Amino acid sequence: MTQSRPSVGALVAPHVASLVADAQALRLGVERTPTGATIVDAGIAVRGGLEAGRRITEICLGGMGKATFAPDTRFPRWNTAIQITTVDPVIACLGSQYAGWSLSDGDFFALGSGPARALWAKEELFGELGYKDASETATLVLETDKRPPDSLIAHIAKECGVAEDKLTLILTPTTSLAGSVQVVGRVLEVALHKAHSLHFPLERIVDGAGVAPVPPPAADFMSGMGRTNDAVLYGGEISLYVEGPEDEAEQLANGLPSSTSRDHGRPFGEIFAGYNYDFYACDAGLFSPAVVTVTALSTGKSFTAGAYEPSLIAKSFGG
Amino acid sequence: MTQSRPSVGALVAPHVASLVADAQALRLGVERTPTGATIVDAGIAVRGGLEAGRRITEICLGGMGKATFAPDTRFPRWNTAIQITTVDPVIACLGSQYAGWSLSDGDFFALGSGPARALWAKEELFGELGYKDASETATLVLETDKRPPDSLIAHIAKECGVAEDKLTLILTPTTSLAGSVQVVGRVLEVALHKAHSLHFPLERIVDGAGVAPVPPPAADFMSGMGRTNDAVLYGGEISLYVEGPEDEAEQLANGLPSSTSRDHGRPFGEIFAGYNYDFYACDAGLFSPAVVTVTALSTGKSFTAGAYEPSLIAKSFGG
Amino acid sequence: MTQSRPSVGALVAPHVASLVADAQALRLGVERTPTGATIVDAGIAVRGGLEAGRRITEICLGGMGKATFAPDTRFPRWNTAIQITTVDPVIACLGSQYAGWSLSDGDFFALGSGPARALWAKEELFGELGYKDASETATLVLETDKRPPDSLIAHIAKECGVAEDKLTLILTPTTSLAGSVQVVGRVLEVALHKAHSLHFPLERIVDGAGVAPVPPPAADFMSGMGRTNDAVLYGGEISLYVEGPEDEAEQLANGLPSSTSRDHGRPFGEIFAGYNYDFYACDAGLFSPAVVTVTALSTGKSFTAGAYEPSLIAKSFGG
Repeated sequence: MTQSRPSVGALVAPHVASLVADAQALRLGVERTPTGATIVDAGIAVRGGLEAGRRITEICLGGMGKATFAPDTRFPRWNTAIQITTVDPVIACLGSQYAGWSLSDGDFFALGSGPARALWAKEELFGELGYKDASETATLVLETDKRPPDSLIAHIAKECGVAEDKLTLILTPTTSLAGSVQVVGRVLEVALHKAHSLHFPLERIVDGAGVAPVPPPAADFMSGMGRTNDAVLYGGEISLYVEGPEDEAEQLANGLPSSTSRDHGRPFGEIFAGYNYDFYACDAGLFSPAVVTVTALSTGKSFTAGAYEPSLIAKSFGG
Repeated sequence: MTQSRPSVGALVAPHVASLVADAQALRLGVERTPTGATIVDAGIAVRGGLEAGRRITEICLGGMGKATFAPDTRFPRWNTAIQITTVDPVIACLGSQYAGWSLSDGDFFALGSGPARALWAKEELFGELGYKDASETATLVLETDKRPPDSLIAHIAKECGVAEDKLTLILTPTTSLAGSVQVVGRVLEVALHKAHSLHFPLERIVDGAGVAPVPPPAADFMSGMGRTNDAVLYGGEISLYVEGPEDEAEQLANGLPSSTSRDHGRPFGEIFAGYNYDFYACDAGLFSPAVVTVTALSTGKSFTAGAYEPSLIAKSFGG
Repeated sequence: MTQSRPSVGALVAPHVASLVADAQALRLGVERTPTGATIVDAGIAVRGGLEAGRRITEICLGGMGKATFAPDTRFPRWNTAIQITTVDPVIACLGSQYAGWSLSDGDFFALGSGPARALWAKEELFGELGYKDASETATLVLETDKRPPDSLIAHIAKECGVAEDKLTLILTPTTSLAGSVQVVGRVLEVALHKAHSLHFPLERIVDGAGVAPVPPPAADFMSGMGRTNDAVLYGGEISLYVEGPEDEAEQLANGLPSSTSRDHGRPFGEIFAGYNYDFYACDAGLFSPAVVTVTALSTGKSFTAGAYEPSLIAKSFGG
């Protein structure tokens, strides 16, 4: 790339400001902590909703992507899909959206995603991206149903190099409507992350788009985790446009879909239970969309692999 | 709900201002009455169009919802659908969009819909919603092909408690492009209204989404009324997310679709003619989408009932 | 029509300003020439992308239309479509988007499209449209992979009657992501242009909408030209709403689809090669969407003609 990198923190700032400004209509809770941090509750003590989830997805993408609801005919009964496009998938998805910041403090644990990760930038991934943000405000999305303790809020601000009154934390429980949307909105990101695991050079990924069905929220964390994963694994489809030799694009397409994993073929909840709920025992290669098309820009040839699994979607969402 | 209610009048104001500002490009007529009221003609002496109808739909939703055109493959020939999402379906659809204000003055008659209803708030429904708006501007959408008389304009302003120069009336004939869109954009609202008729507690309806095909405008009022109703009755699909016991969600799903009505199964124009064009003789239970999925958030279980009727859509739109 | 005409130059100005302001995130190159003209590179020395192409499509439409990506299930493997709606299809598509300005200077040649055409307004078409813009800024989109020479930039500004520092040129190579999108985004425009060729009175065309699949970019100009044309010819669908007698709407529907052309039935690349790459030897009637529905507003009757050709899309995009 010949251009310098945009700041996800600067690009996302107006999105975060309008989320907070519209909190009442979006049915979000907003707390200003004693130290000035802003905590947005997107589904713990409040209802939130699908639209809140859509806007939080765009915040996760660092203001560099669009999340759009679309009527969907691929899966009977589940007629709303979320579509993801970006202006730069590698920065939007891996530099911002990926849930790569593991946060714990006492008995609080959550994965952090969104643009503040690029201020912290201590994940190994950022070295490979050659990307570090320097914005004055920090926004982190936490998949949690608990408010983080003040000590953790202070820690996050410090790690990001911002004053606490420049930090916004957005809390999305897995079982909430907003939480369901923002997880499924990772359909393109998981493909990029798996491409990285397969050692495909990220600088060769030029563009992409993805779509996945929005699952009905589950009543408990495990089912919610199951459905949102199944939406991607068995109902997600993405396209990628890459540079480099055609045969490497073909290899990438063949390696990407969830069907390449030993764990593919059962609802995620069953797989997870089979590993005694040890997330890291699951095959990391499972976390990828069902259908993948990779276009080699050097030759214009496209390669498609994987397949939708409507019966698994029906079992997971309808269970 | 733990939050206070947003003001549909305040939320919709920028939408109304931009509709008026963009009137020339949208091919709308704008009249400033001697008393200062604004009358927007969306298809009487002017062309208006699909996009004007889409924006008027969002105004009907009180600035609390999105109406989006989407390419649609469900019904051959009719390839554009309108999708509705909201930040709070009960206020957006029932507190604002529902055509619940019956207005007459001399030989002028029209149903009023949109955010000004929540200023008036004299419909029984508002008592049940526990909602009354207090914005300084009022916007009402009238399904009509005639300009309302000055005396009615004064009456509406007075009933809303606003000065006439703070009142905007938007006129949408049933046979216009904008009018067709804004009626079909009620696909989610009719489901909420029927849920209310079925005595489902409105405070338990958390979220929803809907989609329906945009019919070709008809040349006469009766056919237009027929097609827009058929678009919803035989081509509309919605999802609702509700609180409360699972069995009540199941009952709601089974009770909602248009197929539960004794009148289901013929184009609306035929049904209406069969009742000698007496709207109130039609079964009120008919006015609902074709397909309904209700998710019980308490258990995560979803219930689907109803079916598309492509042959009736073909007969209605293609006739 | 009873209204005066909007200015595409004035309506598009904020779109152009934001494209330039967001250039870094959109991966566009921006050059300020010595005489003050702005040149936006959307895919020559820079990557650009799908989203850049979408925004350039809206600029081509003179700020009077929307281009929206939508998940598409019509063609396996090619899961992203672009949908076009406008506030006035005749001005947006023919008065602005049509690539009707043939520009050459030395060995530089390109077709110019977009709102600056309406300032120049020397194409015969503008006489028939009765439309001429008078905005102070000019924006022209050039389908090219070369920077135009300074002498041509000066010529364009002069022909548009604007100072050079009020001129923006946007360069979109056919093989770029942005270029692929902006060509396919002409699905509605080609239908209007063919309607004009068929002598259908343009003032009778009231509204329309269109959709076409986004092809994978090709590696060479000829293949790129082939795929973008095939996306429209074999995968495009539009609807038009027209005034006038029903039988003339029926004639228009029957005359419009690409299937009416003697050249229909092979990928465009083959057709073009068969004419020894002489564009003007191709049947002009070929350039039209695959499926067309025309509604006669006078009677409400719709007429559909043409058919998708999935096997030709597969051959073209997958070749």
